[in-house]
Amino acid sequence: MVDKILLSHGNGGKDTQNILDKYIFSKLPEYLKKTDNGVGLDHPDDGAIVQGKIVIATDSHTINPYFFPGGSIGTLAASGTINDVVMMGAKPLAMLDSIVVSEGFPLDDLDKITTDLINVLKENNISLVGGDFKVMPANSMSGIIINTVGLGIVEKNPIVDNILDGDVIIVTGNIGVHGALIASLQYEIESTLKSDVKPLTKLLKLFNDFPNDIHAARDPTRGGLAATLNEWAQLSNKMIVIEEKEIPIPEEVKSVTQITGLDPLVLANEGVAVLSVNPSASKEIVKELEDLGFEPKIIGKVIQPTNHDNEKLVIVRTEIGGAKILEMPSGDIVPRIC
Amino acid sequence: MVDKILLSHGNGGKDTQNILDKYIFSKLPEYLKKTDNGVGLDHPDDGAIVQGKIVIATDSHTINPYFFPGGSIGTLAASGTINDVVMMGAKPLAMLDSIVVSEGFPLDDLDKITTDLINVLKENNISLVGGDFKVMPANSMSGIIINTVGLGIVEKNPIVDNILDGDVIIVTGNIGVHGALIASLQYEIESTLKSDVKPLTKLLKLFNDFPNDIHAARDPTRGGLAATLNEWAQLSNKMIVIEEKEIPIPEEVKSVTQITGLDPLVLANEGVAVLSVNPSASKEIVKELEDLGFEPKIIGKVIQPTNHDNEKLVIVRTEIGGAKILEMPSGDIVPRIC
Repeated sequence: MVDKILLSHGNGGKDTQNILDKYIFSKLPEYLKKTDNGVGLDHPDDGAIVQGKIVIATDSHTINPYFFPGGSIGTLAASGTINDVVMMGAKPLAMLDSIVVSEGFPLDDLDKITTDLINVLKENNISLVGGDFKVMPANSMSGIIINTVGLGIVEKNPIVDNILDGDVIIVTGNIGVHGALIASLQYEIESTLKSDVKPLTKLLKLFNDFPNDIHAARDPTRGGLAATLNEWAQLSNKMIVIEEKEIPIPEEVKSVTQITGLDPLVLANEGVAVLSVNPSASKEIVKELEDLGFEPKIIGKVIQPTNHDNEKLVIVRTEIGGAKILEMPSGDIVPRIC
Repeated sequence: MVDKILLSHGNGGKDTQNILDKYIFSKLPEYLKKTDNGVGLDHPDDGAIVQGKIVIATDSHTINPYFFPGGSIGTLAASGTINDVVMMGAKPLAMLDSIVVSEGFPLDDLDKITTDLINVLKENNISLVGGDFKVMPANSMSGIIINTVGLGIVEKNPIVDNILDGDVIIVTGNIGVHGALIASLQYEIESTLKSDVKPLTKLLKLFNDFPNDIHAARDPTRGGLAATLNEWAQLSNKMIVIEEKEIPIPEEVKSVTQITGLDPLVLANEGVAVLSVNPSASKEIVKELEDLGFEPKIIGKVIQPTNHDNEKLVIVRTEIGGAKILEMPSGDIVPRIC
């Protein structure tokens, strides 16, 4: 019997779910999983809703290396939490950051990291209203952890993920880029990949233009597309069928995954959204995404399960006509993000 | 020239202020230090106010050892953030927690810690609406860090710390207990001390009963009473005079500080508030604090500085009739909280 924390417990997939179920969710009475007129741990999503209109999200960001082509842990910490707020249909107004850094951490690096973080806030007109700063002794930590909190206000309707039969699944851009880049750095594979990390605030216009047609929105970070789609299938008791050939995976991502044996669908993305939308509006949504500068692709759809054996399943139809189950990620997360 | 992070940068006093000024505050334009109709980094306090009524606070909690008489890092993480929300005059409604734990951390310990955290929430009817869970490899961290976020709604008036001439300074209980306990554990000094860690939600009744008379409220955690009083003096350009003999310091705290050479006024408190109140209401406030079960003491007052030399100063009048300046803590924080 396992009596210690394993790296796999942090994979953002099945093992993390098990830990959270056992050590947190099961100890909380239902009425304390959300506030009145809110959404919380009763319905896991990118963020929580409090009092109908307030969205709050938080994440503790760790990454190795903390500088990478396209950004740094500072860019990541700001963008990741902004995106969690946006994915709830809310306009981010304020952020708080708690930095935990180890004794001996280079001040030049801290300088670059906080500049990156603040630049994302400036570009998106989001205020930094508070935070914390702690130093850990060198014998108990090495590196930096940045926790960010995002607060936003729902503009029209909140997007509380609930996929419906017939929904069309859209990704707003290339899949696997950030994860493949980090893998290439950790495995020392030469590549010209650049992280896709960026805030997705431009999507708010789409969400406001289609207030009733976007049934779910998520940024598939840790655990990748596989984790997001499996969570949606579980939340709504649906089956999702994805067409492998429609998933936009850049050649460089494919070559990193071929060398490493990684599945691009479990790799983290940091500047992509997945949407589950009303089929009757899907063409217009794709058009507006293109107008907003995204490169959207319809990759699959939501199916009414015919029986208990296929509900909560995510199926990938392969290019050669077969079909395989896309599992919730489990075991060690590779590349490790920290 | 220092080019690396030192432990003293995390002391919650002068060195932390310098780091935050250089690497965060100076990079932010004024308009991004708060939201419209809000209070943020423009006016450092326990928490931030967004849109007039929403209070948000966050802290990353680390402590060594993470179990101690009277509680654990779980009790501390919940209580600390609840208290930051309460000190702004807001009723805490929701919390989020981000746990970062190292590979190899005992699951039994995690179990006790999350139980402690959730028990505080249950006892105070506060919902846990979201969070994060990350695992760090054993070679980059050992132990556990818990970041908590608290969201509350201002009940009557927010308490945006601004001390006024003539204000009376009140502490709601004994000073130095938590810090002395942690010092006794780190220095292996025998003691029967028990941490004072607890939520201060009962103070909300006082804040609602005296909506205009409480000019500042703070829980003096890291950096202790010395950090809180100095921050107030700096924020409002005032002078504060404290009577040493009025500060309630238990004998056991005194004996720990005598052995270690620590100043009880820089030791962390985790279940005590300091208030700066209208002198005409101070008797009634002390009476209500007693009725609420606190052991309040008037320890000093706010003085109009007579010139630039004594504004922003905190003076302690000693029992033998002398006077000394109580400095903002600087250098290494002892006991180290992590």
